[in-house]
Amino acid sequence: MADEVQQTPKRGRRPGGTDTRAALLAAAREVFSEQGYDGATVRTIAARAGVDAAMVNHWFGGKEALFGEAVLQLPFNPKEIIAHLLEGGIDDLGTRIVRAFLTTWDAQGGGVFAALIRSVAAHEQVADVLREFFLKNVFAQLAGKVADDRPDLRANLVASQMIGLGVVRYVAKFDPLAESDVEALVRAIGPNVQRYLTGPLD
Amino acid sequence: MADEVQQTPKRGRRPGGTDTRAALLAAAREVFSEQGYDGATVRTIAARAGVDAAMVNHWFGGKEALFGEAVLQLPFNPKEIIAHLLEGGIDDLGTRIVRAFLTTWDAQGGGVFAALIRSVAAHEQVADVLREFFLKNVFAQLAGKVADDRPDLRANLVASQMIGLGVVRYVAKFDPLAESDVEALVRAIGPNVQRYLTGPLD
Repeated sequence: MADEVQQTPKRGRRPGGTDTRAALLAAAREVFSEQGYDGATVRTIAARAGVDAAMVNHWFGGKEALFGEAVLQLPFNPKEIIAHLLEGGIDDLGTRIVRAFLTTWDAQGGGVFAALIRSVAAHEQVADVLREFFLKNVFAQLAGKVADDRPDLRANLVASQMIGLGVVRYVAKFDPLAESDVEALVRAIGPNVQRYLTGPLD
Repeated sequence: MADEVQQTPKRGRRPGGTDTRAALLAAAREVFSEQGYDGATVRTIAARAGVDAAMVNHWFGGKEALFGEAVLQLPFNPKEIIAHLLEGGIDDLGTRIVRAFLTTWDAQGGGVFAALIRSVAAHEQVADVLREFFLKNVFAQLAGKVADDRPDLRANLVASQMIGLGVVRYVAKFDPLAESDVEALVRAIGPNVQRYLTGPLD
């Protein structure tokens, strides 16, 4: 991003900085959800948050990173997810991935996932964000830790199942999957994700 | 659709009718792909095809049906797919579903699938089309024929894997899955689809 408009204070030195950051995240979630990735501007998001547009670069480094953190918001960071998911051992990791995915996105009502898919479908740049956040930071890390072979393909396969699950539950809202109990889906889908991680692929 | 603008000739009686129909399908694929479901109008599509807008209602009954046939274009109709897929028996039906899905959409270069997902994410009405075409006419028919229990949930689960596969291969283009050989993916994914159709889900 070459558009550093002005000198910005160092991170954390501005009084109320954490509030500014939280306000930007909340505003970004609304504006990206309403207008998609391309339609949403840094200026609009900052105005919604009631702060100067320079604060976006200051706190997030730019629109793409703000999108990643605001829209792909996970209630924990990738390193914490991976540590948490691996704690329970490898044998039912697939089950824990499905449960974590559903409880995370269910808690957000599905609208945030729909906004994500809408943006990915429309914009190559957002596909890069998705690749960076989900694939590289989560699924590839998990597959890299537990797979005996082809961790990259396995990470892609896990991603295919989890993204498809999200589309069917939160975007297309197929019945009965959209309304199914989390634990019923964990039992139905977990073993398939486990096979992608540690099973034979040939 | 309440906008029947004029009396239209009966199907097949207009000279060059088949050409009109083919021209409308080709134009619709272009316009839906460029402008999404909502942006594309019957008038624009008809103009692109060089025919009167009334021809859309005449040949397809309206924009939604035209979208279904043009954008969800399968090189065979749903009844033929199901008959073809079931011909080889139940035991490796999952494998044949994955192969048919990949060869169908690969042949179209992936852009049509991306347009479909973009439209589904943006428009509830298009999710209905997807539900009608894919879920009700294909996956639910297959699951209904081969599943011992819960055919509707099984059809949803198969749909989740196939849609996710399409998003990762054609929209997000994750590496290496986007470039993987069809038969390698058939071996990797087919058994998971088979479990959704006929395996234990609990």
